[in-house]
Amino acid sequence: MTKVYFNSWLEEYKKPFGAILVNEFISFKFKADDPNVTGVTLVIARDGGQSHTIKMESYGTAIYHFDYFFNEGKGVYFYYFELHYLDANHAEYTRYYGAVAGGGPGKLVDHLEEINAYQVTCFEKKETAPKWYRKGVFYQIFPDRFYNGNPKELVNNPKANTFIYGSKEDTPMYIKDENGDIARWDFFGGNFKGIKAKIPYLKELGITGIYLNPIFEARSNHRYDTSNYLNIDPILGTEEDFADLLDALHQNDIHVILDGVFSHVGRNSLYFNYDGAYGIDKGAYRNIHSQYYPWFTFNRYPDEYNSWWGVKDLPEINKENKEFQDFIFGSAGVLQKWNKFGIDGWRLDVADELPDEFIAGIRSNLDQFADKVLLGEVWEDASNKISYGKRRQYILGNHLQGVMNYPLREQALAFLMADCRPETIASHFTTLQENYPRDIFYNSFNNIGTHDTERILTQLNGDKRKLSLAFALLHLFPGVPCVYYGDEAGLTGGKDPDNRKFFPWDNIEEDCYEACRKWISLRAENPVIYEGDFLLLYTERILGVLRYDAEDFVLVFFNPTNGLQVLNVAEIQTLRPLPIAKERLQAIIGRNNTIQEAGTLTFSGKLFE
Amino acid sequence: MTKVYFNSWLEEYKKPFGAILVNEFISFKFKADDPNVTGVTLVIARDGGQSHTIKMESYGTAIYHFDYFFNEGKGVYFYYFELHYLDANHAEYTRYYGAVAGGGPGKLVDHLEEINAYQVTCFEKKETAPKWYRKGVFYQIFPDRFYNGNPKELVNNPKANTFIYGSKEDTPMYIKDENGDIARWDFFGGNFKGIKAKIPYLKELGITGIYLNPIFEARSNHRYDTSNYLNIDPILGTEEDFADLLDALHQNDIHVILDGVFSHVGRNSLYFNYDGAYGIDKGAYRNIHSQYYPWFTFNRYPDEYNSWWGVKDLPEINKENKEFQDFIFGSAGVLQKWNKFGIDGWRLDVADELPDEFIAGIRSNLDQFADKVLLGEVWEDASNKISYGKRRQYILGNHLQGVMNYPLREQALAFLMADCRPETIASHFTTLQENYPRDIFYNSFNNIGTHDTERILTQLNGDKRKLSLAFALLHLFPGVPCVYYGDEAGLTGGKDPDNRKFFPWDNIEEDCYEACRKWISLRAENPVIYEGDFLLLYTERILGVLRYDAEDFVLVFFNPTNGLQVLNVAEIQTLRPLPIAKERLQAIIGRNNTIQEAGTLTFSGKLFE
Repeated sequence: MTKVYFNSWLEEYKKPFGAILVNEFISFKFKADDPNVTGVTLVIARDGGQSHTIKMESYGTAIYHFDYFFNEGKGVYFYYFELHYLDANHAEYTRYYGAVAGGGPGKLVDHLEEINAYQVTCFEKKETAPKWYRKGVFYQIFPDRFYNGNPKELVNNPKANTFIYGSKEDTPMYIKDENGDIARWDFFGGNFKGIKAKIPYLKELGITGIYLNPIFEARSNHRYDTSNYLNIDPILGTEEDFADLLDALHQNDIHVILDGVFSHVGRNSLYFNYDGAYGIDKGAYRNIHSQYYPWFTFNRYPDEYNSWWGVKDLPEINKENKEFQDFIFGSAGVLQKWNKFGIDGWRLDVADELPDEFIAGIRSNLDQFADKVLLGEVWEDASNKISYGKRRQYILGNHLQGVMNYPLREQALAFLMADCRPETIASHFTTLQENYPRDIFYNSFNNIGTHDTERILTQLNGDKRKLSLAFALLHLFPGVPCVYYGDEAGLTGGKDPDNRKFFPWDNIEEDCYEACRKWISLRAENPVIYEGDFLLLYTERILGVLRYDAEDFVLVFFNPTNGLQVLNVAEIQTLRPLPIAKERLQAIIGRNNTIQEAGTLTFSGKLFE
Repeated sequence: MTKVYFNSWLEEYKKPFGAILVNEFISFKFKADDPNVTGVTLVIARDGGQSHTIKMESYGTAIYHFDYFFNEGKGVYFYYFELHYLDANHAEYTRYYGAVAGGGPGKLVDHLEEINAYQVTCFEKKETAPKWYRKGVFYQIFPDRFYNGNPKELVNNPKANTFIYGSKEDTPMYIKDENGDIARWDFFGGNFKGIKAKIPYLKELGITGIYLNPIFEARSNHRYDTSNYLNIDPILGTEEDFADLLDALHQNDIHVILDGVFSHVGRNSLYFNYDGAYGIDKGAYRNIHSQYYPWFTFNRYPDEYNSWWGVKDLPEINKENKEFQDFIFGSAGVLQKWNKFGIDGWRLDVADELPDEFIAGIRSNLDQFADKVLLGEVWEDASNKISYGKRRQYILGNHLQGVMNYPLREQALAFLMADCRPETIASHFTTLQENYPRDIFYNSFNNIGTHDTERILTQLNGDKRKLSLAFALLHLFPGVPCVYYGDEAGLTGGKDPDNRKFFPWDNIEEDCYEACRKWISLRAENPVIYEGDFLLLYTERILGVLRYDAEDFVLVFFNPTNGLQVLNVAEIQTLRPLPIAKERLQAIIGRNNTIQEAGTLTFSGKLFE
């Protein structure tokens, strides 16, 4: 054991583990078993605030400790340690101890620049999401691409100047003009009636929630270019059809969350009205006196305006605008309408583009209703995300209840494609677990692929055994799994639009489907998977996911390699303490210790004897 | 009057007028009222044959004559005159008299190069087309773009990897890839049931024949890329649907001619099978032992092959191939199938690309059936067309019965857009009348626009009054008028694909429709228009079309200008003799001699007192 040591993941050094509420204490203990060390200083600061230098107490032992009171409010705090040394000439010098990357054990260095600070997330409110959410298994539907429920698959109200695919098996494509802009939008014609018709399929799979990509009036097939927030896109059906779908889903205990796209609107919207479809002199683009004019930022009227990532088709909204805010989350606004309509929550598109106050406004509207959930699209660690130069408040309370878990997808792929050791995924997830308030971590909206990524099966080079492993990770990791429509049917596809093929109803790959259903069902039968504690186990090649509570456990080992692996309990490591002795683990595993290539080994039962 | 004169259009100089049967005589008379002329020689040769030099007889008068016996077989013959002079010193010299351009009066020159030869067309058989054809009024339907007769306009069997327009009002577009090749074909979904449903509309308009653009199995929306000559394209309906449509049309006295596309096939056809849709080892492209391999010409197998105008999607057929010939016009071939099926004739696509023997083969198949018609796509004067270095036999008998009258469209546009004087159209058409056997001339398949040209209304800059004039020319000129679907509804559009919009059923321009119907109806009520003689009258700005026989006449004057024109009978000229005296013409016109801007003035009745 090194003589100088700290590990933010072990309670003998930092207690409690992970994020804390404001005005709570953390007990830091630093080990410096070196006679040359004369003292240890804890250097700590709230993000952007004053730095505090605190002499830790040791009472003559090698353990220096201090109970820090987090009384500067919510936010992320950063800390590291200064070690004071006396050299042979009794001259004083200082060394530093801090994080390598994320939390866990750190390192001792001569120069401050060689380490990172450790992070403590200090939040103001526990985000206990609705129970239906926490235990749910979601299914993401890109509505145009799922199923057309009309007789003979007639397309509802096709839009002018659009194309409809000749066959459901056609590969999606963008139809572009010479400039590379979209010339016409393309549709398959999936609709609400189609989703309703497939409820038995979803039930059979074990789905309890649906995340719908946008459904409001728009020009494109993805509908992130909203034309009118208060209307259902007629190609999907009527408002009545939507009500009917909602009823049918609710009767089947399936909840529905919508995609809230509030950062920008479509150029050809009621609000901007570029092409004049909403009236020759209406909308911000056509009338400087339009009520919508102040929603947008024109650098030179009317053709130079701020737009999302420079995409001229998506003029950006000035979210500071009070009228827009009122329109979205006011008492007669968009959220009010659809929340009252009966939907169960929202996934906020490009949450990074929404100011914290805007998200808080949305949240306070939602809080007027019982049991709704608010999630956000954030691709990274949401606890310390900086966007537009500002540290974000997403997960500190009264904002988001959870974020999309793209890190899971990323780590799962790296692990399954064997260019990353199991320890790496363990380390990455223990950092996330440490940084996120427990509820936020457990509210993560897990995915292994969405409409914004390549299809998981394609990324796994078509390996269906590994697809099963990916489904297992999706369902076993803390958070709420969300299956991207068709992943369970063996759909493949590269980047957009290839990842948005029509659901292959006549060609569902049985083995993919069964793999997905198996892990959904394991989760449904073992509440410990969505409520219990979480610990990753690993050897050189094998990863184990342990979910447990005082009673039950589920433990699944993953062999991502293309060869048989034998599990040797002695080799198993963890980054946080294993709640049982190795002997008990050995007893659980017994002689059943061989894992097939690209296979898993599952144990469950009572963890403690 | 000039002293030296010949005019191939006047029977006092050349009798009979126009083309003759083989082994007939033409009486040439040449006027040389000049004492210095000592003799006139007729120089005449069958195209490509030996030149004959014939001393004409004069018996001491100024008129030199010779009755030439056309005994060298069918073909075009060319002739001019040599005039022998004695100068003041009694030295002999020669001058030449020949055509300026086309027929009519010629000119006297010092050098042979300054004139053209006159043409005599000598044919072997009169092509009296079926009576139903000669008196017909056709309507050209591009099947995908006319009407969808299915409930809710469901598209029959859409093809894989195609697009269907979202709205019938959408502007057609090509969907191309980076290389400019068609990436996917686009369909509106018009079909046989749709045509059947619109029979009442066609009847009301006065239509008695339909020319259908291709209907056989193919990949594209135009179907000039045949996949299988023996199958109906399923997007149009079944073979039964086609039979049903044929029955319904025939019951309504509407005949049907098909588009015969035999010069090339589609790359993705049963025969070539580029993409393997017809079997992994089938077709010329995939199997050198395929029965279809000899149909094509590979310069380097399999990727370098002859194709139509270099379009790789359209591999060219070697029409000399006996198996292909047998397949097309043999006793169990393509023509046999569809002729027996009950269609009434064919329009041969790109007739220039079909060898004469191939056309003759097609014709002899047709001749086994009563009352079928064979037309050809030729854009120029078909009597002297040279393609691939060979003078074509189209109209000399036993080949085509008529050709598409694109010269009418061209001259009509030039005249109506006022960049061409009425005399020019008269001269141009008298040449055509002279060069074509009378039946061929009267069998012309008249058009003022097709799927291969810009829409007539667009070319007329949207001027609907001129559209009416164009319809009048279409229906009054010798030949069988064919209205391109939608021209009568006011459809506009530039070049392909803009000229192939869907028929605007909800937005038919009433004045366009009424104009078209009026001229159709005038023709229907006056058989002299399709049976009678033809003479063009003209003044500086006005054109008159006279159709007449011993009994009846119809005479329509056209004012293409944007001002009122007053018709002065004294100013009226003709290129061939007016069958009545100017006094009689004056009596017919009477005081009704004002023609509105872009208007017409119509007279009919008994021509002779």
